[in-house]
Amino acid sequence: MAGSSFGVLFRVTTWGESHGPAVGAVVEGCPAGLELSREDIQQDLDRRRPGLLPSASPRREEDQVEILSGIFEGKTTGTPIALVIFNRDQRSGEYEELRDIFRPGQGDYTYFQKYGLRDHRGGGRSSARETAARVAAGAVAGKIIARAGIEVLGYTRALGGIEIPPDTLANIPLNRESIRQNTLLCPDEKTATRMEEALREARTAGDSLGGIVEIIIRGCPPGLGEPVFQKIDADLAFALMSIGSVKAVEIGGGFALAHMKGSEANDQMNRNGFLSNHTGGILGGITTGQDILLRVGCKPIPSISLPQRTIDQAGNERVITLEGRHDVSSLPRIVPVCEAMSKIVLADHLQRQRTARWISE
Amino acid sequence: MAGSSFGVLFRVTTWGESHGPAVGAVVEGCPAGLELSREDIQQDLDRRRPGLLPSASPRREEDQVEILSGIFEGKTTGTPIALVIFNRDQRSGEYEELRDIFRPGQGDYTYFQKYGLRDHRGGGRSSARETAARVAAGAVAGKIIARAGIEVLGYTRALGGIEIPPDTLANIPLNRESIRQNTLLCPDEKTATRMEEALREARTAGDSLGGIVEIIIRGCPPGLGEPVFQKIDADLAFALMSIGSVKAVEIGGGFALAHMKGSEANDQMNRNGFLSNHTGGILGGITTGQDILLRVGCKPIPSISLPQRTIDQAGNERVITLEGRHDVSSLPRIVPVCEAMSKIVLADHLQRQRTARWISE
Amino acid sequence: MAGSSFGVLFRVTTWGESHGPAVGAVVEGCPAGLELSREDIQQDLDRRRPGLLPSASPRREEDQVEILSGIFEGKTTGTPIALVIFNRDQRSGEYEELRDIFRPGQGDYTYFQKYGLRDHRGGGRSSARETAARVAAGAVAGKIIARAGIEVLGYTRALGGIEIPPDTLANIPLNRESIRQNTLLCPDEKTATRMEEALREARTAGDSLGGIVEIIIRGCPPGLGEPVFQKIDADLAFALMSIGSVKAVEIGGGFALAHMKGSEANDQMNRNGFLSNHTGGILGGITTGQDILLRVGCKPIPSISLPQRTIDQAGNERVITLEGRHDVSSLPRIVPVCEAMSKIVLADHLQRQRTARWISE
Amino acid sequence: MAGSSFGVLFRVTTWGESHGPAVGAVVEGCPAGLELSREDIQQDLDRRRPGLLPSASPRREEDQVEILSGIFEGKTTGTPIALVIFNRDQRSGEYEELRDIFRPGQGDYTYFQKYGLRDHRGGGRSSARETAARVAAGAVAGKIIARAGIEVLGYTRALGGIEIPPDTLANIPLNRESIRQNTLLCPDEKTATRMEEALREARTAGDSLGGIVEIIIRGCPPGLGEPVFQKIDADLAFALMSIGSVKAVEIGGGFALAHMKGSEANDQMNRNGFLSNHTGGILGGITTGQDILLRVGCKPIPSISLPQRTIDQAGNERVITLEGRHDVSSLPRIVPVCEAMSKIVLADHLQRQRTARWISE
Repeated sequence: MAGSSFGVLFRVTTWGESHGPAVGAVVEGCPAGLELSREDIQQDLDRRRPGLLPSASPRREEDQVEILSGIFEGKTTGTPIALVIFNRDQRSGEYEELRDIFRPGQGDYTYFQKYGLRDHRGGGRSSARETAARVAAGAVAGKIIARAGIEVLGYTRALGGIEIPPDTLANIPLNRESIRQNTLLCPDEKTATRMEEALREARTAGDSLGGIVEIIIRGCPPGLGEPVFQKIDADLAFALMSIGSVKAVEIGGGFALAHMKGSEANDQMNRNGFLSNHTGGILGGITTGQDILLRVGCKPIPSISLPQRTIDQAGNERVITLEGRHDVSSLPRIVPVCEAMSKIVLADHLQRQRTARWISE
Repeated sequence: MAGSSFGVLFRVTTWGESHGPAVGAVVEGCPAGLELSREDIQQDLDRRRPGLLPSASPRREEDQVEILSGIFEGKTTGTPIALVIFNRDQRSGEYEELRDIFRPGQGDYTYFQKYGLRDHRGGGRSSARETAARVAAGAVAGKIIARAGIEVLGYTRALGGIEIPPDTLANIPLNRESIRQNTLLCPDEKTATRMEEALREARTAGDSLGGIVEIIIRGCPPGLGEPVFQKIDADLAFALMSIGSVKAVEIGGGFALAHMKGSEANDQMNRNGFLSNHTGGILGGITTGQDILLRVGCKPIPSISLPQRTIDQAGNERVITLEGRHDVSSLPRIVPVCEAMSKIVLADHLQRQRTARWISE
Repeated sequence: MAGSSFGVLFRVTTWGESHGPAVGAVVEGCPAGLELSREDIQQDLDRRRPGLLPSASPRREEDQVEILSGIFEGKTTGTPIALVIFNRDQRSGEYEELRDIFRPGQGDYTYFQKYGLRDHRGGGRSSARETAARVAAGAVAGKIIARAGIEVLGYTRALGGIEIPPDTLANIPLNRESIRQNTLLCPDEKTATRMEEALREARTAGDSLGGIVEIIIRGCPPGLGEPVFQKIDADLAFALMSIGSVKAVEIGGGFALAHMKGSEANDQMNRNGFLSNHTGGILGGITTGQDILLRVGCKPIPSISLPQRTIDQAGNERVITLEGRHDVSSLPRIVPVCEAMSKIVLADHLQRQRTARWISE
Repeated sequence: MAGSSFGVLFRVTTWGESHGPAVGAVVEGCPAGLELSREDIQQDLDRRRPGLLPSASPRREEDQVEILSGIFEGKTTGTPIALVIFNRDQRSGEYEELRDIFRPGQGDYTYFQKYGLRDHRGGGRSSARETAARVAAGAVAGKIIARAGIEVLGYTRALGGIEIPPDTLANIPLNRESIRQNTLLCPDEKTATRMEEALREARTAGDSLGGIVEIIIRGCPPGLGEPVFQKIDADLAFALMSIGSVKAVEIGGGFALAHMKGSEANDQMNRNGFLSNHTGGILGGITTGQDILLRVGCKPIPSISLPQRTIDQAGNERVITLEGRHDVSSLPRIVPVCEAMSKIVLADHLQRQRTARWISE
């Protein structure tokens, strides 16, 4: 059934397959009167581009977004914004030998089980290529939340088992500049160097790596989130867990809170606000006005060049070796995707909150 | 706006406040012809009852569910099932002194920020009491998934910093009997004894504890879950993160996968199926047919008897000491709530999957 | 699947069967801070009460509503408002002989076709009794729209083939007082007397009558309604057509516009506003600020005492004679139901419109 | 907010403005395994083309649809189907003089009231051009319902005050051939000739005409439709009323039923089925298995060449004369749009019904 839409008031629908003619998004519910240009969106898309990233395949993916509706004379009109990114590099022939084989760790087997058929070319709909549409839609959301003074910052906290040491993390500035100083989006240069080394090793070995992304949301007003199911943490967890590689999500202290006492975990207050932020900026599913802190665990890219055991559609045992242009890790390219999903949730909840009280009018 | 509903085809709406006259749920989309009795639902509710749990307050909460619609002569009719649990123990007077104070770690501050007013009695809508309605609705979902051969099992894996040792866990049977042998729902008796000790100590100290719940879903057919946003792992993460105490969710290997290589993380296959289950039974957001494995991190109960700094609605600094009937930990009472939320997601996706292919008719 | 909910931001879910223990509604998305009492709701319900209406059966239906959640100290809290009306008069035994028979003109046959089983007692879920829950929910919506200065007025325009003559209609005042001066809610006394006579005749003959309800919505601000599917006229048509007896809906000039020329139908403007209102207050699916005019065609009540041919569940031919307590017409009792459905649509669109522009903040 | 989507399981989102680069639709929830080609869709679009219709403007609109996703090797994959129709004829300059003026009978005034700005070029989002996307999406729905044996037939019943006489209508065959024998989609040749004459006169006079479309749905299985709000008649009324020109919808006997007695209106049954079809194939909001009958009243096209009084955005009084390429009537071009909307509702409800019973598996 319908499952490619997300959001209630600010609503994103994505479409498109890895090797189809295009991928795209329809953004509904963007309020009217917002300045929005193609460049606003392209800029976010460019951050997803492999470029010379040590983690990325040499495949060129020059994603150029086009706006087909919803903007008039530089402003949103309140009607659906259709975004399309045509595929430039569509060599699907190279997937021919994979037509009947289920690649380990991919959605091949499950899509076939679900639908009885599948588009085998590069994962079809389950490809990471779909995330380009998310990033494009997230750029629209970004314009809304920027107006409300909210900033969403994602960075690479761990990659291939190498993590920024906690005491280093406590002492470095986390801002747009410190994060974007290197292509890995890791705010600590020393750690970034070690991560690059790990990526090189994995590439040489034909293997792949996972990692941890951290998201910091600053400037969020209190009051966003709906009791009791549509809590903003539930929506953020949903949004992030819907990204292909993601297998774990923590808010604030996350799993560490499970081992703390109430007297340690509770964020006490004085007249100046909260005295700590273990809760990650969300209480009872509603924002407190503090920074929202999210941690996202990403599994290694499943496409590796090492031989793997699998089966084909007829049930025959096969050994598969995936040659070709694969990223070594979903990080750092997944960072703007995590940011985009967070932005969409925030834009949606900002809009929802405008209807929460009657007396505010 | 509307935020107390959950699910698409199998849809649950809950209502009710901690100290209002009742809490309840409306279950829409339950297929017709299913045998369902009050006892089916009461049985799950009883598992949420404090009883003599060492973690629970001595407050009696004899939740008796009533079915007000949707059942005729012992079978579901396809129309909404209204469930209500009247409050028997409604002493809201004892909250009078908390009328203007924000309790640390609770939704008091955020509800007030959101709505400009709040029901201060026991947390109002943000109270854990609302989860009784989730458990009741989950029991209806349980009937559907049982018909499809699916079993959902939750247990206490960690509590107050005490965790079942990994090698113990590898060697004990995980089933309904082993889990329910003690009131803590911990399948290892030795660990359970230590957890009970920790609970006693925390109670004496006026403090509280967090813990980790693990959910195992057995017998789930392949093919459940929708690309690309409404992945079944995204829906499960949403469902679990919407429970008050939950601050972290992992699927399968979870955060550990972030530190693995692709060659280690990928679940390879032979003709008999998968050779491992790091992915936790879900690939590309769709079930593989393997066990689904979920891990849920719960923060400590925020209500503690130790003095805490906070402010009141006028912004004055206050010190608060919460006397009275509080649980020491949300575990094990949260276990059936996690099970209920998982069951609702599964029932919804089972129904969705019936519409995925046309050729199957 | 789920089908008993209605609305997006202001959302109503009803439940309950004719002869079950209760009917009820859950109202989600009511903004916080609105004064709301049981009496506000009861008042609307009382207007649905048969009383001494010449069209009504002598059965007493003293519907007493209870508010189970969502109100605190006389104000809405922003959380779901649960409303319940317990059935006082539940003599289902009298339906025993109808257990296997499909009553002509009722939902008996179709519910059985849909679900494979049905609650035969008084129509079960398809009974007009469910509309009590709509009226209760509509009263909540009524509080919201009253704050915005909107008034919804319904009246009986035709009954049993007797219609208020057009030139009479053009010359009588249409307001709360003129409409409620008689029990038929017909603002012309002369016509009302003739309608009463028709009702008496039909009752004597064991037959039933249909009629036409007109709804006038005054004080609605311009700008409500969403392009392109969720037009406010589409939502109003949906809302009204979802009432059991309704088989036709017109907006403004309605079918008469189909026979007009553009030069006659277009509502021209000068600096003081529109020069006519053929469009019924809605252009392009969005309100103009003029009165919204709706006309609703209601079929006769299907329950009649005259013998009718039908079949039973086994397919045997039967002749059925429905003795007992039936209304002779759904009018005027359907008038507050039509008003309630209109109010719910307006409350929902008022809330939606608060999110339409960003620049308005 | 989001308002350009429609349907629950089979869900259509349209986007695009009259004079933007393209219009399009995303179709979610189409089951996998359905054969679908570009030609299937183009064929329906061609029926919407003005061609040499006496009612149409000479403007050429060669709508060519492209499928950008969701189809693989000629079959649907279960993922979103993106359809796009690029605009070939985009002379927006000619609208420059209308930039600040509200055309009578159009959405100009209300869009401006809603959003504070508007795309003035040819109505922007409110243009009838958007219906091309509906027709394209409806063609996908058409493939689903055809598999289930359902046929949707629309025809022109009245145009410019000229209606097929009832006794003629009772004696002519209503099928694809009889309807498509003339460009007006009027199954009676004599009436069609008179309608053409009326169209010619109106064109000469610079005026426009309305009309009535009738829809017959054959072969629909019983059981489609959801109690109590999402009745299939409510969804059909919503779908049809969401088309720009439509101001009235009747099901079956419609308004005529309001003047009948129960003994006349009830459709009695014998062992061979129903003895009449006043209810139009729907009882209690659920299909009976009989033909579904719908009647749709369309107002005249608002664009006329006669001078009309109006105001501009600054509130100044203006007289407007719309020269140029306007259709004289929305009929017959609206007929395939009405068919498309009906098909979408049916496809959605067919999918919903697959989940209604558990015992059917």
